[in-house]
Amino acid sequence: LCPRRTPRRPPRESERSLVEWLATRPQTAGRIGDDAAIFGPRAAHVVTVDSQIAGVHFPADLEPEILARRLLAVNLSDLAAMGARPAHAFLALAAPSGFAHRRFFGSLLRAAGRHGLELAGGDLASGPSISASLTLIGERWPGARRWLRRSDARPGDDLFLGGTVGDSALGLELVRLGARLGRRGVSLPEAASLDAELRPAARRAVRRHLLPTPQLALGAWLSRHARGAAIDVSDGLARDLHRMCAASGAGAVVESARLPLAAGLEPLAVALGLDARSLALGGGEDYVLLFTLPEGVAPDPALRCRRIGRIQHDRAVVLVDAAGRAEPLADRGWDHLSDRP
Amino acid sequence: LCPRRTPRRPPRESERSLVEWLATRPQTAGRIGDDAAIFGPRAAHVVTVDSQIAGVHFPADLEPEILARRLLAVNLSDLAAMGARPAHAFLALAAPSGFAHRRFFGSLLRAAGRHGLELAGGDLASGPSISASLTLIGERWPGARRWLRRSDARPGDDLFLGGTVGDSALGLELVRLGARLGRRGVSLPEAASLDAELRPAARRAVRRHLLPTPQLALGAWLSRHARGAAIDVSDGLARDLHRMCAASGAGAVVESARLPLAAGLEPLAVALGLDARSLALGGGEDYVLLFTLPEGVAPDPALRCRRIGRIQHDRAVVLVDAAGRAEPLADRGWDHLSDRP
Repeated sequence: LCPRRTPRRPPRESERSLVEWLATRPQTAGRIGDDAAIFGPRAAHVVTVDSQIAGVHFPADLEPEILARRLLAVNLSDLAAMGARPAHAFLALAAPSGFAHRRFFGSLLRAAGRHGLELAGGDLASGPSISASLTLIGERWPGARRWLRRSDARPGDDLFLGGTVGDSALGLELVRLGARLGRRGVSLPEAASLDAELRPAARRAVRRHLLPTPQLALGAWLSRHARGAAIDVSDGLARDLHRMCAASGAGAVVESARLPLAAGLEPLAVALGLDARSLALGGGEDYVLLFTLPEGVAPDPALRCRRIGRIQHDRAVVLVDAAGRAEPLADRGWDHLSDRP
Repeated sequence: LCPRRTPRRPPRESERSLVEWLATRPQTAGRIGDDAAIFGPRAAHVVTVDSQIAGVHFPADLEPEILARRLLAVNLSDLAAMGARPAHAFLALAAPSGFAHRRFFGSLLRAAGRHGLELAGGDLASGPSISASLTLIGERWPGARRWLRRSDARPGDDLFLGGTVGDSALGLELVRLGARLGRRGVSLPEAASLDAELRPAARRAVRRHLLPTPQLALGAWLSRHARGAAIDVSDGLARDLHRMCAASGAGAVVESARLPLAAGLEPLAVALGLDARSLALGGGEDYVLLFTLPEGVAPDPALRCRRIGRIQHDRAVVLVDAAGRAEPLADRGWDHLSDRP
């Protein structure tokens, strides 16, 4: 006698719509938006949180030592993007019975020590699969003049990348095919049937994916110099550039020919049936800094950055090829509430 | 021709042995040990991290609104135990496709707002099951004279509990039998076949288990008064008292007859084939403060604390019954690396 009701199903939520909604809530106080949140008296600290979940961010059989270093590197990249110096770490770790906790923690502590970072607390749990969340607190570098924000890009700024893009996404593809990084280095899957000359680049791509290098020195340099925006490229160059532009109320022109690609990336991508340029623009997990500087200011050459374009007044984000043809650069990349981009 | 080797299996790790090992590492700088870590210039802040994992800390079908409040309450209890005022929160959340993110966040933000807490950042991921880690940063309450530490108990101190113990563990038992807390209140499982007069206490126990009340006002009072140790009872009164005594280099005498038990707990425990005293001593997740004050200092009666014993010079931890018979109080309770205590 009661009408049969369709069960109320929540609409499929995108990360972007959820974060935009959160940012308008009074209890978030306008802090949602940067790679880390600034807090404390005299804005002395930043805080960032990032997780690594088995089967989502890494293969469940990853060595505990590598997982610990990856977890730390991904989080340190957020501090790098703020121009912050690593200070304190807090870990929440859930793992199944039999997980080699001391191998994980030994590796985490050694890597933390190399960055002057102290593990100050955390939470341990037994759980069905490995899930690790790391909270990092960062301080100002000596001589720092500012925190880096994604909202500080201005029309006329030059746009830079701190390293190559696309190789991490290609490494992920190889991991999906069965590539593994262990104590003896990278093993490549037979399934990929890679020619011998492609194998060194393939090994580098797997290593780059599983063990990214956070650009802390570049973040420190930027925090001491000039003005400009910064963000770390975690969800794809296109998506993170769109985020920077939206936060800054500006647009950008990217010169396709200037995109820094790792040596050997293009033939390797072809061999795997992938497009190097798509990987570079939308692959994600590059963990290099995307940043701007006022025209005429260039980063220290030792930091090996590449200028890839400029910020413009027009809010469009466009890609220009070598012949000068412009096309819109779509906001493609990872959405963390979807399984795949 | 190679001798067959037994595969190297890590020894089953206990939380205690792992934490003791971590505490000796140079990269933890002696900070591991309290409910939260003290940091920053003039020790102005404390930080704590705690997780809630589906199937481990809560039933996977728990309403997102209740989960959000439980996650926050469990973390706030750590701030209460430090005598800290909630300031900033950072969330790492992994959940399967279809999780009602806005119901979860709406509830989390409302609860945060009630405590003057701001959600300042976080990390979202799609994952096979729900796993949430919350990092809280606490500040000093106005008029606070100290942070509360578990190492500050001294022989002669009176020992207090901020509320009843054992009812949360009984609530967990009911949840295992099928009890649920939803928007219409607690539903009790038929399987428990509870008499009508036991049902109100059963409903209170389930609510107490799923929605504990962090004792922030008590923590604030203690931070402004006298001297003494504090810890929140998360892993069982016996275990957390042992931790306090070990950190303070002292022992304790607990008067069994003084243990505060919730109204109706004993007959309810009997009906479920459980022992109320064992639940009170080793059940865990009570989230009340266990604390000491110098002899003659009593907490504000409005805080409704109960004196349960005293700290002694002898390092033994003993339980004394109404007839004056003493027995050792074993270090029983949760070990978060085992599945069950």
